Amino acid sequence: MATLSFEFWYEFGSTYSYLSVHRIEDLAYTAGVEISWRPFLLGPIFNEQGWEGSPFNIYPAKGRYMWRDMERLCAKYGVPFAKPSRFPRDSLLAARVACLARAESEPWLPDFIRAVFRANFAEDREIGDPVQIRSILNELGRPGAEIVERARTPENKQRLRDHTHRAIELGIFGAPSFVVGGELFWGNDRLEDALAWHQAHTV
Amino acid sequence: MATLSFEFWYEFGSTYSYLSVHRIEDLAYTAGVEISWRPFLLGPIFNEQGWEGSPFNIYPAKGRYMWRDMERLCAKYGVPFAKPSRFPRDSLLAARVACLARAESEPWLPDFIRAVFRANFAEDREIGDPVQIRSILNELGRPGAEIVERARTPENKQRLRDHTHRAIELGIFGAPSFVVGGELFWGNDRLEDALAWHQAHTV
Repeated sequence: MATLSFEFWYEFGSTYSYLSVHRIEDLAYTAGVEISWRPFLLGPIFNEQGWEGSPFNIYPAKGRYMWRDMERLCAKYGVPFAKPSRFPRDSLLAARVACLARAESEPWLPDFIRAVFRANFAEDREIGDPVQIRSILNELGRPGAEIVERARTPENKQRLRDHTHRAIELGIFGAPSFVVGGELFWGNDRLEDALAWHQAHTV
Repeated sequence: MATLSFEFWYEFGSTYSYLSVHRIEDLAYTAGVEISWRPFLLGPIFNEQGWEGSPFNIYPAKGRYMWRDMERLCAKYGVPFAKPSRFPRDSLLAARVACLARAESEPWLPDFIRAVFRANFAEDREIGDPVQIRSILNELGRPGAEIVERARTPENKQRLRDHTHRAIELGIFGAPSFVVGGELFWGNDRLEDALAWHQAHTV
């Protein structure tokens, strides 16, 4: 039996997290690994590094490259993609909803995560707008208004802050990141290596 | 016949360039691709982005991760690795020698490149020191002192400046990078994709 957890640290505003969200479930299933979904915010981490906003906006050459890279990788993986008209989008409410669903072991959490990423990176929807988050929840057959309200309680807000602090403690500086038995793997490109690490270190 | 060139842009101070230098010749041979070796300097590019030195030193979490990632990847690829006691090392003279050898179509260029990267990342040698560069050339059966002197002519210094300017024009912001028919691929992780792109676009 696997005793090691496989933590998938994702951020709803992150392009490369979208690629991993699309790929991780099939790969983890094949590898016999259970995913621990860990939402966090990159904003506070970027701020600590002295960046106001995404490095893809601050460094234009890096940003231009990233969008072309995303186009190529989405084509390669067969992931629907439309360059969002705003980047990065405010991921605070979506991350709070994900924290709530995680805390309450809701089975719809992966569906919600996939739907929010698709809204952001394939449907050009404003995931920072509560209307959109409520609507995504309603489309999943959940009471959107009620969940959004409960996502905004002080207790649940604290959950997301705790997640982000934990990410920093783990040495996380970007998204997606994978943590397996104390080993950190950064980036969609490391998903396979992280899963292989889990398999090699599971007794 | 392949008409597209396959440009491998490398920087002697760059850890991930070391991984690609180790891997590229076998992969390119298998893919039937001829490598165009393009030395350049990251320093001026980092300076333009407002970084004084390597981002792996400026951002500690990123740096700690990179060294662990290198350990894991070198183990995976079977590449000898010893964390250098100085990072990054001054790559100016090595890059100038590589420019000279490239301009004169010297057949020992790939041997020199491999030897310098190994010196830096497996043997902890000061590749910024002319003594070491001369010694590496001598070990390859070349007249080290003479080559180092010719690498420092104004004409050859200009070659390296031209390479670095060309890199910036191509949108390059890190190393290694691969350029295939106007497409830029960044990072050792994209070597296979760059080779596949070459094959898919060769008539």
